Amino acid sequence: MIIKDGSHTPIYIQIAQNTRKTITDGHYRQDQQISTEDEIALQYGVSRMTARSAITELVKEGFIYRVHGKGAFVARKKIERSLNKITGFHEDMESAGLSPSSKIIKYVKRLPVDLECHKLNIKIMQYVFEIRRIRYVDGVPYGYQELIVPEYLVPNLSNLNLEEESLYSYLKKIQKPIFTAEQRMEAVMKEDINQLIEIPYKIPLFFFHRVSYLENNTPVELLNSYFRGDKFSYSIQLSD
Amino acid sequence: MIIKDGSHTPIYIQIAQNTRKTITDGHYRQDQQISTEDEIALQYGVSRMTARSAITELVKEGFIYRVHGKGAFVARKKIERSLNKITGFHEDMESAGLSPSSKIIKYVKRLPVDLECHKLNIKIMQYVFEIRRIRYVDGVPYGYQELIVPEYLVPNLSNLNLEEESLYSYLKKIQKPIFTAEQRMEAVMKEDINQLIEIPYKIPLFFFHRVSYLENNTPVELLNSYFRGDKFSYSIQLSD
Repeated sequence: MIIKDGSHTPIYIQIAQNTRKTITDGHYRQDQQISTEDEIALQYGVSRMTARSAITELVKEGFIYRVHGKGAFVARKKIERSLNKITGFHEDMESAGLSPSSKIIKYVKRLPVDLECHKLNIKIMQYVFEIRRIRYVDGVPYGYQELIVPEYLVPNLSNLNLEEESLYSYLKKIQKPIFTAEQRMEAVMKEDINQLIEIPYKIPLFFFHRVSYLENNTPVELLNSYFRGDKFSYSIQLSD
Repeated sequence: MIIKDGSHTPIYIQIAQNTRKTITDGHYRQDQQISTEDEIALQYGVSRMTARSAITELVKEGFIYRVHGKGAFVARKKIERSLNKITGFHEDMESAGLSPSSKIIKYVKRLPVDLECHKLNIKIMQYVFEIRRIRYVDGVPYGYQELIVPEYLVPNLSNLNLEEESLYSYLKKIQKPIFTAEQRMEAVMKEDINQLIEIPYKIPLFFFHRVSYLENNTPVELLNSYFRGDKFSYSIQLSD
């Protein structure tokens, strides 16, 4: 129902709201084409530009995706990850039946900065590995991570192929599984990250700052992660 | 260090990165004025327009705020809320030493829709209260919530002043404290919510969908919340 009664909500937002509702109510299946811009313009008696803005709104929200020259299609539902378990991206994607992979864009062994010494409980002369990875799902960039790991805990890390394999599985294999973690979540927009993961429009990202610990409370990783807000949701079970 | 060597990162983003770092490194205190647009333009040898874009970037991220005719100032750090406890907005803000309040923009008693019957485990003839509130911190809109509560559990809800008082405290008082909850979090941008909470530019929002239960597993609330991504962060302790 489009309101033209002095409400301050722009028409394109109202059209987006209506269209979003038809999608969330389940009137479409995944990858089904939705009404074209022309059809929406005709249906609501608006300009094609307005219809396009409504579609763009839903593309940014992750409900639909555009195929050049073909139209707009219903996107896969957001991938739901649990906040109740300490798991990594690789493991979570595999459990969801998806295919994770990574591209390493930086891999250095270096001395730590003060903050890293403090958070990782290491001395200024103890080396760390710094690894930056773009994370892919089925070949599409879905996130970006900056990882800092103290060398003394994983001296043979370079044997691990971090483009295909999971750090968390490796830590289990070498008898240093992650036992606890502290995590802070933010919702952000960052142009530089959008560029890294090749997103041409402004979308919100989840930002996670995680410090993970071994069973004896030794810090084993500092992790800054950015994941696409249009692709992921996070669920949690709370009890009093 | 500004790179002009063919890097694809726009100059204004690089300036924003530098300025963000000086803030997060603690070179400024809260409410301290940062360099003006003119000073930034001079310092980096860029146009005033570019300097302004860099500042706008940091305003959107919540690091600084503008005062008309005066300049830009360092914002309060994001308010950190815990995901390990089932608490409400009111309680969380008071614990943080802040002053919460609300404006009710809708308050109706009505019959439920199918989804509400299903999630609240009620019959189609059992009334619910639907309450929409804008949530304020120190008088500034920080969020928006849509609450659905079954009437049979809180028949005297209308005695509660939901503009000033906490639903969760009220539930405790009537011996129906919330015991568990399921919560889904998303990072979204929504123009209609931005308008409701009077944010003139596009910022990311946290969206929460929560279903809360009493000790006997009876669903007692459906809650959809939107909170400003530039004002809040959420922390969680994880263990394996």
